[in-house]
Amino acid sequence: MRYALGVEYDGSDFRGWQHLGEGGPSVQAALEKALSSVADSPVKVVCAGRTDAGVHGECQVVHFDSEAERDPRGWTLGVTARLPRSVAVRWCTPVADDFHARFSARARRYRYRLLNRQVRPALYRQTLSWERRELDAVRMHSAGQALLGENDFSAFRSIQCQALHARRELQSLQVSRSGEVVEVSVQANAFLHHMVRNIVGSLILVGSGERPVDWMGELLAGRDRTVAGPTAPPQGLVFLGPLYPDNWQLPAEVTL
Amino acid sequence: MRYALGVEYDGSDFRGWQHLGEGGPSVQAALEKALSSVADSPVKVVCAGRTDAGVHGECQVVHFDSEAERDPRGWTLGVTARLPRSVAVRWCTPVADDFHARFSARARRYRYRLLNRQVRPALYRQTLSWERRELDAVRMHSAGQALLGENDFSAFRSIQCQALHARRELQSLQVSRSGEVVEVSVQANAFLHHMVRNIVGSLILVGSGERPVDWMGELLAGRDRTVAGPTAPPQGLVFLGPLYPDNWQLPAEVTL
Repeated sequence: MRYALGVEYDGSDFRGWQHLGEGGPSVQAALEKALSSVADSPVKVVCAGRTDAGVHGECQVVHFDSEAERDPRGWTLGVTARLPRSVAVRWCTPVADDFHARFSARARRYRYRLLNRQVRPALYRQTLSWERRELDAVRMHSAGQALLGENDFSAFRSIQCQALHARRELQSLQVSRSGEVVEVSVQANAFLHHMVRNIVGSLILVGSGERPVDWMGELLAGRDRTVAGPTAPPQGLVFLGPLYPDNWQLPAEVTL
Repeated sequence: MRYALGVEYDGSDFRGWQHLGEGGPSVQAALEKALSSVADSPVKVVCAGRTDAGVHGECQVVHFDSEAERDPRGWTLGVTARLPRSVAVRWCTPVADDFHARFSARARRYRYRLLNRQVRPALYRQTLSWERRELDAVRMHSAGQALLGENDFSAFRSIQCQALHARRELQSLQVSRSGEVVEVSVQANAFLHHMVRNIVGSLILVGSGERPVDWMGELLAGRDRTVAGPTAPPQGLVFLGPLYPDNWQLPAEVTL
């Protein structure tokens, strides 16, 4: 039997969704350990999109196969009870055998939040990054529109990125301000490694006035990572979740 | 010279704003230590409203006196640099000698947020409390309106409360829902010990349908703490800050 899970996590204490090798826990390992305990046999998961160390998940989706007979509520509550406090299962639903958390997804949504003031964040420091330079969110929004559509995003791609090519379809990019918080929301069919944080890092240079509004379009066309802005820090980034066609009958929050 | 400071803190790791006796740090002690270091002489602070263990502050206000010659920016950045990561000074401003953080305040604002779903919060667990029973926020809002005005709030007062009397003026109470989060916002001239958490604890019983809408008014009239709901947990509560008359020329966020 194949199941899909919606998973929420605070990435602060993890080395990322997946972590190969020594040093520090991964969200995937914590989840597989809890699932295996409930199933009483080893369980492996496949996720919709891996997140880096310090990046959070609001509704990551995974699928797994198990012969264990548990109802959705049993999986949800049983697994959550065995997870560290920084991870919770939001929901569980049986899915068709050909559902694949990664390959069935048609889009992914991310949100980046930064606190734009003179002093560092204290109360919400786990989920906000910090920028001292005064940012013009309207200017950032305008600049970001140059990235929309199907493009080669090599300019915003980590050198460690293992994707076969750099073409992605950026479906929306919105920048807004609420008080001291500047928020960047993006949706694409898929993202390259560090793509959101690299886009945000360059948008910050436009928002602070150090680069002109049309610089984002120039960066995109140039396909040169070395001239774009720095990678923005991870703690402001939340993977809101993937979106699937409605034939999979998943919860509304992950359905197109 | 007298100064006012706006202070933000994550109460998770503290025994409260003030803590007398053994065991665990207080926000006040951390702040006084950092201020004394910048002033190079002992500094004591007076706050607008003490908060309990686990309760957060978005803009607590304190005043202190010091002969040290530092400009507002020097106090703000110097003190923040010496504070733990869970505390930051938002701003500093010189004030008249008769300004008093507690006695000059005309109102205080608090916000309580709880996650209303089957599984516990993971990503925002430091600032959300959790309620499994399905809550009707519209019903809670209606019920809460019975508390508005100047009333004797003995029904919502902790037995440890040291206030001389229980009369307070509740100026606004609003309950709303955004997705899985139910938010209660209140403003009063001042609050009794545990007053917000006790009001929320009773509103939850109305929201879940266990008590009728007019129960809040009955509780208020009865003045009996023992028949009201339980004290809601601290982590969902944020002291947004006090409000002062504009003659003190404080930042807009703490000015009436």
